[in-house]
Amino acid sequence: MFGEMIRDAYAVRTGVGPRPLAGGRVPRPVIEVIERDDGLINGAPADHYLDEPEDWQPHDHRALRLCRGHVLDIGVGAGRIAVELQRRGMAVTGLDTSPGAIDIARRRGLRDTVVTTIDAYAAGAPARYDTFLLLGNNLGLLEGPERAPVFLAALARLANPGARIVAQGTDPYRTTDPVHVTYHRRNRERGRLGGQLRLRLRYRLLATTWFDYLNCSIGELAELVSGTRWRLVSIDEEDRPYYLAVLELTG
Amino acid sequence: MFGEMIRDAYAVRTGVGPRPLAGGRVPRPVIEVIERDDGLINGAPADHYLDEPEDWQPHDHRALRLCRGHVLDIGVGAGRIAVELQRRGMAVTGLDTSPGAIDIARRRGLRDTVVTTIDAYAAGAPARYDTFLLLGNNLGLLEGPERAPVFLAALARLANPGARIVAQGTDPYRTTDPVHVTYHRRNRERGRLGGQLRLRLRYRLLATTWFDYLNCSIGELAELVSGTRWRLVSIDEEDRPYYLAVLELTG
Repeated sequence: MFGEMIRDAYAVRTGVGPRPLAGGRVPRPVIEVIERDDGLINGAPADHYLDEPEDWQPHDHRALRLCRGHVLDIGVGAGRIAVELQRRGMAVTGLDTSPGAIDIARRRGLRDTVVTTIDAYAAGAPARYDTFLLLGNNLGLLEGPERAPVFLAALARLANPGARIVAQGTDPYRTTDPVHVTYHRRNRERGRLGGQLRLRLRYRLLATTWFDYLNCSIGELAELVSGTRWRLVSIDEEDRPYYLAVLELTG
Repeated sequence: MFGEMIRDAYAVRTGVGPRPLAGGRVPRPVIEVIERDDGLINGAPADHYLDEPEDWQPHDHRALRLCRGHVLDIGVGAGRIAVELQRRGMAVTGLDTSPGAIDIARRRGLRDTVVTTIDAYAAGAPARYDTFLLLGNNLGLLEGPERAPVFLAALARLANPGARIVAQGTDPYRTTDPVHVTYHRRNRERGRLGGQLRLRLRYRLLATTWFDYLNCSIGELAELVSGTRWRLVSIDEEDRPYYLAVLELTG
């Protein structure tokens, strides 16, 4: 689903490849549909996956200044961040589970890519990294209390000594919108974290399976990290409710 | 659903009223999600319901030149077309089933509005019209072979002698996209017209019930009109696959 959508967004932006049309004639905007398990549905233009640095949010720029050594960009997508890191002369590998997204990232010039899950990649442990990058809200890949330690252990297996994770998250609790406040309460009643979103993505006839994606407060993040090999060393909250967290490998 | 979406789109465009936010901070684009009964899902920015004449498609402008006498704009929405007709000094009534949409149309200056179905309105027959306007693809309100004669009879009850219908439709068969070609075939196998779409609209937590909405060829339109009190007198196909049809009351 993701690959097909990114390919269409790329075709619209660049004119390369067949563009989606309405009525066989009029260009149709490429929109990612995000469904939540309470019935909430939102559409978001997919073009932002291709944004150039001048279109980025300020925290994306600050995140890049936190990178050092060999970088693994996890959920690299169309390579928005990784291509810029590479342009700046850094060693960067882009990892994504979507072959279609990686295809576009490579067409945009990203040289070092891998199509796999982080678990499978860590099991093979073919390389070691100094920075793990989780931007575009990809701190959400922690999913929740069950998955987070497993995910963080996989990164530890891929880590050089002194490695760091640079992750962008969203604090879900800075809203008074009853749609979200009700959802958070319902989640807690079911033993989940309030911002443990259950989502699926849809594009045209395609849909992902339902998956968990975590928006957590900084306090919740600290909880999830405690007991792992990682230590929360700094938080940049300048663009609230979005934040950048830096975690460092211990021992 | 429609009213809430239009209200949000209006708030984003004008700054009047609370705007939808992502994370309680960043403005979120207002997107109408359209689901088809084969699982196809599309998002479309809702802002076009508020377009000013300079943003319109060319056939909208040509449609206005076909209006005469007292106009009933059916499915007037946020009043995009009716407000402009009124500005030009024409007598125009806006009809919609959505109180929220009519609220926005009135805030945008439309004076004569009615919140009801066309069937209920025709049963009361409080007024007579010279032109019935079905723009923004609202020829689709014919739904299909069962509904079309009922709908056209309702308009006939509301018609002055010599009245006309000015309707914008879409020929669905000018595409080679297998997603649509397969859908048309599946419809025909079930005894429906190929372009007899079964849709529902979704916005945030709200959804319409499933309804039929017709995209038909000009040949199919001629079939649907035959046997009614209306006669197909002209077709403007300049903006294919979109077309403007003019029907005139007979007898």
